[in-house]
Amino acid sequence: MDLFVVIMAGGVGSRFWPRSKQKKPKQLIKIFGENSMIQDTVDRLNGLVKKENIFIITNQAQKESVIEQLSDISSENIIAEPFGKNTAACIGLASILIHKKSKDAVTIILPADHLIKDPAGFRETIKKAANFADSSDSLVTIGIKPTRPETGYGYIQFIDDQVADSIYKVQTFAEKPNLSTAKRFVEAGDFLWNSGMFIWRTESILKEISIHLPELYDGLLTIEKAIDTVSFNEVLTNVYGQLINVSIDYGIMEKSSKVFLTKGDFSWSDVGSWEEVYQLSEKNNERNAKIGDVYTENTLESYIFSPRKFTAVIGLENVIVIDTKDALLICNRENAQDVKHVVDYLKMNNKDDLL
Amino acid sequence: MDLFVVIMAGGVGSRFWPRSKQKKPKQLIKIFGENSMIQDTVDRLNGLVKKENIFIITNQAQKESVIEQLSDISSENIIAEPFGKNTAACIGLASILIHKKSKDAVTIILPADHLIKDPAGFRETIKKAANFADSSDSLVTIGIKPTRPETGYGYIQFIDDQVADSIYKVQTFAEKPNLSTAKRFVEAGDFLWNSGMFIWRTESILKEISIHLPELYDGLLTIEKAIDTVSFNEVLTNVYGQLINVSIDYGIMEKSSKVFLTKGDFSWSDVGSWEEVYQLSEKNNERNAKIGDVYTENTLESYIFSPRKFTAVIGLENVIVIDTKDALLICNRENAQDVKHVVDYLKMNNKDDLL
Repeated sequence: MDLFVVIMAGGVGSRFWPRSKQKKPKQLIKIFGENSMIQDTVDRLNGLVKKENIFIITNQAQKESVIEQLSDISSENIIAEPFGKNTAACIGLASILIHKKSKDAVTIILPADHLIKDPAGFRETIKKAANFADSSDSLVTIGIKPTRPETGYGYIQFIDDQVADSIYKVQTFAEKPNLSTAKRFVEAGDFLWNSGMFIWRTESILKEISIHLPELYDGLLTIEKAIDTVSFNEVLTNVYGQLINVSIDYGIMEKSSKVFLTKGDFSWSDVGSWEEVYQLSEKNNERNAKIGDVYTENTLESYIFSPRKFTAVIGLENVIVIDTKDALLICNRENAQDVKHVVDYLKMNNKDDLL
Repeated sequence: MDLFVVIMAGGVGSRFWPRSKQKKPKQLIKIFGENSMIQDTVDRLNGLVKKENIFIITNQAQKESVIEQLSDISSENIIAEPFGKNTAACIGLASILIHKKSKDAVTIILPADHLIKDPAGFRETIKKAANFADSSDSLVTIGIKPTRPETGYGYIQFIDDQVADSIYKVQTFAEKPNLSTAKRFVEAGDFLWNSGMFIWRTESILKEISIHLPELYDGLLTIEKAIDTVSFNEVLTNVYGQLINVSIDYGIMEKSSKVFLTKGDFSWSDVGSWEEVYQLSEKNNERNAKIGDVYTENTLESYIFSPRKFTAVIGLENVIVIDTKDALLICNRENAQDVKHVVDYLKMNNKDDLL
């Protein structure tokens, strides 16, 4: 099987301000341990796919940092979109580039910024999905067994009738639910978390694009003709500006009749907020996670990131502290989602150097 | 009347970490407005006493900063003690230096780190005290009308029988009380806050020292003989090391029968903690005091000092945030007194650069 990987790394991640910035979003910062999330995403593919078959789709602002962080990946495989156009265009672009290299390619589409604590389990799941995708014209996604009624994730309902090893037909996709709906989903047993990972033959997804997003398909054909010519970048920029801005979920997955999933039974998180970072971090006896030279007294269940200076926290509970070179965030854990209000405030006040 | 002032500026002030440091304690930092507290203390004397009659007693570590901040005061009037020896020795040293200049001097002893919001009222009170001291051999202190049952101050009980304009005989000194005692003091009406300010003829205090602290007096005489000689600094250092370490309150004021007070009816605080700084600061509608570029959301009754970088505080109440170049403090207002534990921790761990 001619396996390829596309890592989508264009996200901005305002919920991780002030650590994430436009030029250095969530996937490029070291949230857990010594590696950034995009480095972990590449490392997790060891033994599964050849380095020269890994492609990164990013944007102009981040490209340099991506090249720097992924020294194992040829810079030719690191492609900057001229404009952000959502996942359908991103995946379409990657697909025509890979299709040019191999007509038989099976492509794994991965977000760059997810946390997976069980890489072996991840690879096992991907292999099952790839085997099924290779032997069919199916679009395969990964559904994660939910461990709690999370309202921050989308869900996928499947038909509980196994069609191959861990493979099920997808019944429907559900948006992020409210808490009571999420509880119902988890109790029902036939709903999984939507991981945003996809596996398919490149020909399969291009065919589905031609059916469900024909204008996008036409644009991709124009770009395809320019591959390996001197005018590639010019054509890419001209065509990309016109492409439809739609997610692969809405544009293809929710419309196609060929959608299956593989049940993933590995620890997974899309790490959507500082609260989730706290939940996923190692904690001490006071249930504090501390990064840096941090003194705490009468302080519980807090996440304190302050690698630059000695920091003392006294008499507080459930707080998030993020100290960076040019900004300081102190936030109740319950308000972790409101960090994006700070980003809005900075945009409105033209404080671009802090974004 | 030949008025002199002695400003005692040797305190370390660990309760204001991380803004106060050993080399830059409370009286040298700008807590309120554009001036440091020692600058405010000097400015408050405008029109009351000549600049050349103002003396500052500080220590070696702080002397340079004091000279820098008090450009109006001759550096000859800024004297560093060789060792910290508590207030009796400090006042004794200042007294012999002033006595050498003027046998008729009336000296006002002031701490360098108090907040007084009504300088005119302060000067009026001092004038009454000085007039009484000049015409007698009394030791006069200033008692402040209490506005709350504060447990952080000492109290002075007076005999409610006016002996001159606003002058009363002191009955007894009381240490910092617990809350119920403090309430009793305030209700009783004959207890005032002990401001730590003293006014007396230099001859009066030297005579009282000779009676109640004769060994200190002998030491002071030895130093006095060396004034204006080349060996002054050597003698000062040798003698000072042997002097008794006792406060003027315990060593003299509580023992002398010549102690009076002037009632002070001006707004006064010894600013003993970040909590008191919060109380004394101007606040906005959310009862927050913010210094620096500070964004708050769902945040109430907090003191946020962060002049160096943009700071966002979300979903917190009653917190103190102090961000400095090399340290960050985040503290519940109720725990403001525990800041000294951080200083203890830093001492124990030899982190002297943070002290």
